[in-house]
Amino acid sequence: MEKRFCSYCGERTVVQTPPGDTRERRLCPACGVVHYENPNVVVGCVPEHEGRILLCRRAIEPRRGFWTVPAGFLENGETLEAGAARECFEEALARVTIGTLLAVVNIPEACQVHVFFRARLQDGEFGIGVESQETMLVEPAAIPWDDIAFRSTTYALQHYLADRETGASGTHVTTLERRHPG
Amino acid sequence: MEKRFCSYCGERTVVQTPPGDTRERRLCPACGVVHYENPNVVVGCVPEHEGRILLCRRAIEPRRGFWTVPAGFLENGETLEAGAARECFEEALARVTIGTLLAVVNIPEACQVHVFFRARLQDGEFGIGVESQETMLVEPAAIPWDDIAFRSTTYALQHYLADRETGASGTHVTTLERRHPG
Repeated sequence: MEKRFCSYCGERTVVQTPPGDTRERRLCPACGVVHYENPNVVVGCVPEHEGRILLCRRAIEPRRGFWTVPAGFLENGETLEAGAARECFEEALARVTIGTLLAVVNIPEACQVHVFFRARLQDGEFGIGVESQETMLVEPAAIPWDDIAFRSTTYALQHYLADRETGASGTHVTTLERRHPG
Repeated sequence: MEKRFCSYCGERTVVQTPPGDTRERRLCPACGVVHYENPNVVVGCVPEHEGRILLCRRAIEPRRGFWTVPAGFLENGETLEAGAARECFEEALARVTIGTLLAVVNIPEACQVHVFFRARLQDGEFGIGVESQETMLVEPAAIPWDDIAFRSTTYALQHYLADRETGASGTHVTTLERRHPG
């Protein structure tokens, strides 16, 4: 679906490269506004409690029924850390203390950057948020690797667990390209 | 200026909290689309060549006339690393090899996340891009600290130079809150 109208004045937009720019944008010929479209940030955390990891089974698309760590779109006015903690409460009713930056994952085809932090449950309590079918605190050996919702979730979980073994607390950066069938 | 019209169908939008959401959004009562607004990612690098740092004096607002490292808005379809390299070429006509992730800076009041990488000039060549008044390769001792454009630039430069002394290559994360006058 194309954004054919100006969100400020309602006129039909045109596609042009603005002066000094290098890309085509949607411009409004009536009010002059350039309607930029830019990637979104998805932010989440790997929440740990007494050695176990908090996972959520998604109640919504995409990837309904698959498991993930709490994560979602960063909101305006929010820090990455605040967004990660908010998503954990919304999806698993768990209050977390956000730790170090675990992973930054480029997903260029989806126009997204996924950012994950290490985290600790504050009191061990959790529940089932409206966007989750089920949540669980799981031993690393019992993580359902074949039923993880997103490759960025797998990347974050794998690095979280490997770093926990070695005591590392650094940040991992990668790019996930589109999967080509066959 | 408010986004009062649906960019898909041109109807007037309404402000409501969608079912299952926790925030007010602009919705289109005609086509049903929710118009989310989310933070933008600004990406840049600290480019080094033979011990000196490449800086650009801004030819455009905001902070016209002040110095910065090459940086700008991440584009759709682009990785953070590709965006950082593109901005360096656009602003300083310099080709860089992007290195490790240097800094992630939350600027919640501006609805932005700034991301900086370490980088090396590939061949020592640089010039003046259309968004720059002037560019220079500068010894660290000669960095014009009082004329740096943005606090995130200062944060990235300071950590880049401190890490260079110690050989560190980790990622620094911070939040810059609004400056309160007086």
